[in-house]
Amino acid sequence: MARVTVWNEYRHERESEVVADIYPDGIHAVVADALREGGHEVRTATLDEGPEHGLTENVLDETDVLVWWGHAAHDEVRDAVVDRVHERVLDGMGLIVLHSAHYSKLFKRLMGTSCSLKWREAAERERLWTIEPGHPIADGIGEAIELEEAEMYGERFDVPAPDTLVFTSWFEGGETFRSGCCYRRGSGKVFYFRPGHETYPIYHDEDVRRVLRNAVEWAEPGDGPTPEFGNAEPREDIDTDDDRTVH
Amino acid sequence: MARVTVWNEYRHERESEVVADIYPDGIHAVVADALREGGHEVRTATLDEGPEHGLTENVLDETDVLVWWGHAAHDEVRDAVVDRVHERVLDGMGLIVLHSAHYSKLFKRLMGTSCSLKWREAAERERLWTIEPGHPIADGIGEAIELEEAEMYGERFDVPAPDTLVFTSWFEGGETFRSGCCYRRGSGKVFYFRPGHETYPIYHDEDVRRVLRNAVEWAEPGDGPTPEFGNAEPREDIDTDDDRTVH
Amino acid sequence: MARVTVWNEYRHERESEVVADIYPDGIHAVVADALREGGHEVRTATLDEGPEHGLTENVLDETDVLVWWGHAAHDEVRDAVVDRVHERVLDGMGLIVLHSAHYSKLFKRLMGTSCSLKWREAAERERLWTIEPGHPIADGIGEAIELEEAEMYGERFDVPAPDTLVFTSWFEGGETFRSGCCYRRGSGKVFYFRPGHETYPIYHDEDVRRVLRNAVEWAEPGDGPTPEFGNAEPREDIDTDDDRTVH
Amino acid sequence: MARVTVWNEYRHERESEVVADIYPDGIHAVVADALREGGHEVRTATLDEGPEHGLTENVLDETDVLVWWGHAAHDEVRDAVVDRVHERVLDGMGLIVLHSAHYSKLFKRLMGTSCSLKWREAAERERLWTIEPGHPIADGIGEAIELEEAEMYGERFDVPAPDTLVFTSWFEGGETFRSGCCYRRGSGKVFYFRPGHETYPIYHDEDVRRVLRNAVEWAEPGDGPTPEFGNAEPREDIDTDDDRTVH
Repeated sequence: MARVTVWNEYRHERESEVVADIYPDGIHAVVADALREGGHEVRTATLDEGPEHGLTENVLDETDVLVWWGHAAHDEVRDAVVDRVHERVLDGMGLIVLHSAHYSKLFKRLMGTSCSLKWREAAERERLWTIEPGHPIADGIGEAIELEEAEMYGERFDVPAPDTLVFTSWFEGGETFRSGCCYRRGSGKVFYFRPGHETYPIYHDEDVRRVLRNAVEWAEPGDGPTPEFGNAEPREDIDTDDDRTVH
Repeated sequence: MARVTVWNEYRHERESEVVADIYPDGIHAVVADALREGGHEVRTATLDEGPEHGLTENVLDETDVLVWWGHAAHDEVRDAVVDRVHERVLDGMGLIVLHSAHYSKLFKRLMGTSCSLKWREAAERERLWTIEPGHPIADGIGEAIELEEAEMYGERFDVPAPDTLVFTSWFEGGETFRSGCCYRRGSGKVFYFRPGHETYPIYHDEDVRRVLRNAVEWAEPGDGPTPEFGNAEPREDIDTDDDRTVH
Repeated sequence: MARVTVWNEYRHERESEVVADIYPDGIHAVVADALREGGHEVRTATLDEGPEHGLTENVLDETDVLVWWGHAAHDEVRDAVVDRVHERVLDGMGLIVLHSAHYSKLFKRLMGTSCSLKWREAAERERLWTIEPGHPIADGIGEAIELEEAEMYGERFDVPAPDTLVFTSWFEGGETFRSGCCYRRGSGKVFYFRPGHETYPIYHDEDVRRVLRNAVEWAEPGDGPTPEFGNAEPREDIDTDDDRTVH
Repeated sequence: MARVTVWNEYRHERESEVVADIYPDGIHAVVADALREGGHEVRTATLDEGPEHGLTENVLDETDVLVWWGHAAHDEVRDAVVDRVHERVLDGMGLIVLHSAHYSKLFKRLMGTSCSLKWREAAERERLWTIEPGHPIADGIGEAIELEEAEMYGERFDVPAPDTLVFTSWFEGGETFRSGCCYRRGSGKVFYFRPGHETYPIYHDEDVRRVLRNAVEWAEPGDGPTPEFGNAEPREDIDTDDDRTVH
């Protein structure tokens, strides 16, 4: 089982009654519960927990997989913390990026693109179709996940083509979206999962919770080699009998 | 034919006699010639051409494909210029990244990873095997490109898996490397091409020159849609007869 | 410009009045016209043109890109012809696979999977979203292609993940589909394009016709190396001073 | 832990003393041992075990992952058995394809290409570089696997680009090869692993054995949805007030 840190901006829940009704202790609390049901060891951290937003070196030392939710205050996340978390991902820490965190500094830096998209808040129906039924993130999921009320995200989603596309969304208003996207970056695995607007009880949905647990398992760091970069001795003899020039 | 700007750091050639012997007018001059042979309209720009390094808005307005060579002064490229060029790539401008420019701010930003690798300067033999013979960048190239003296770059190369891998290098000292890597980022196409150390006459090699021309053709912007991002009207009626809640 | 052969099963048009009204000279005639508008040199061939279905060695010798439409008579295509066309694709001939040809022997052989999918004929609305605006197959296309009446194809579409996904469809009845899929197989390029049921005037749609032309251009064979397979002499000396054993 | 069946052609070991010295009980016995060390439940099957080559429906019913080694008698594998195993893979059974089994009917059918390559038997050195250190198949492996004597396989390897490339080989004689290739086909996972010529003790190598165990774990079937194909009821109302035509 993985040691998980669920990070949340945690502003909407304290400022909006509508949101607080759905997530009285914050989105992070509900996501953390979903993961604990899978046996994971979960802690949480939020934007306003000090200058490091709760993501100290110590916390990250004990984090196998980080889950990230943010929306209205991406710019308040300090660059030093983004640098730190980015480096951890490249070193192998798993990362689950949720919904509006597509626009977080961290995800944009990992993708290298604008991560822009279409959106609309109309409480419309969303249906996530399972594109890769053999992928571990689809374990226990049916052919489709039905969500009665959702914010819409539509293509073009300006991200690199995912290494594996697990879900694609259909929206009542006429759009589609690549909703479950797997990426490898450095030694780390990144999963972007679309559902999760703060004004709908998405993270109470059993299918969504199952996907979160699956994604954490998939994103756990492995035991592969730590790459050695820089000047390297040859492993084979290099012929130096000729007139070659080393400068 | 494409309008190409070849950008070069242009320091080694002015500071080292060894380099100046091979590239008396700069690497950019030789690369530009290779592209002109393909009928492209080519201009050049260098680091020390003013505060914008020769990459003004006007120059970029007239650039379909940008070629980038840098090595020792990546940090001197101003962030505002990197921002500008990055945005142009996402908007569709092609980008060819050469050799040591794997460590440029621009390429690292587009990749989202460290772009680190192994290296060794031992004037050793390199052989680039064509992995995708059907790819346009391999047009006119044989099964392999032979380079008698090259700097070695070895795996692990810390980049996202390329969308298409066109060439893989073999090195005399025992390493391999993904040497020709195609990426889509935003609406732009990016090609990383490994060969090209300043102390070897790599850009005088006919096969290498052919690859450069092919890459420029491949990377030319198309005439696809400009994505519309942001709040979007539905294209279909959304049922609002029920008790759905829009916040 | 490419030399194109448009192959059609050409049965529905001769047996059904509804289909004949839309495609009086056959689907192939309308597709061929669309391609000729792009300057391509186009011939056609059909299932009942003799034992080779019009796809003789001579015809294929003069074909850069083959377009394939079939539906009700996949099994009548002789295996020897499938073998021949399959081999041509691996040798570099482009292939455009249309709509119900997802179930052709040829496409199934190239994919290695069942190529099964969901379907429904309910004259429902389809909207193809452009996922990769920078891909040449999206040239001249808007953010989405709107088709008023279409047969539905829905995921799970049992194909290998495409090398590049250019379009994704939204359907009125609630499904999504990967509608524009690029593959490399051997030295050849394969594009699967979903629209095109025989009872709707899909191939009269200007956007669809533009995609067909773009796809032909993209799929044209290049001038890359012909791979040499089999026993190969070493390009480097192999140390034989030790006690190694060659059997 | 997985239930694994290791299938072997098992001819060389009975016909050649050189091979029998290395694999007295057959390659399958040594591979099976390697997997049992990982706690897997392993059985074996061989070409000459009756008309079904030991791969009866019953055996496959109890197989999570199938390992396949073949070389000189690919053509003797009956098509009905290939059909059966192919279908199982699409239904989710994992498949590990070893070395010369690149030319097996089964692998060629799954790939849809010729699966041809260059080869040479010169007892030369091979070094497999780990390209994706974060992939579970690289768990416990170093930066590179060193094999002192190997048959060479060289590019162009005529397969579809792998979904994930885990290892790339360097050969003493000057070639490279994509040596560890992951594919998804249907609901099943396929891993091609290059090392393993019958005349070298490759499957006694600890790194190679570790890769085999990792690959089996990676390829185990999951618990995702079984796709439903064919005619499908809509999940949403389709507007039938207009003059649309269903045929």
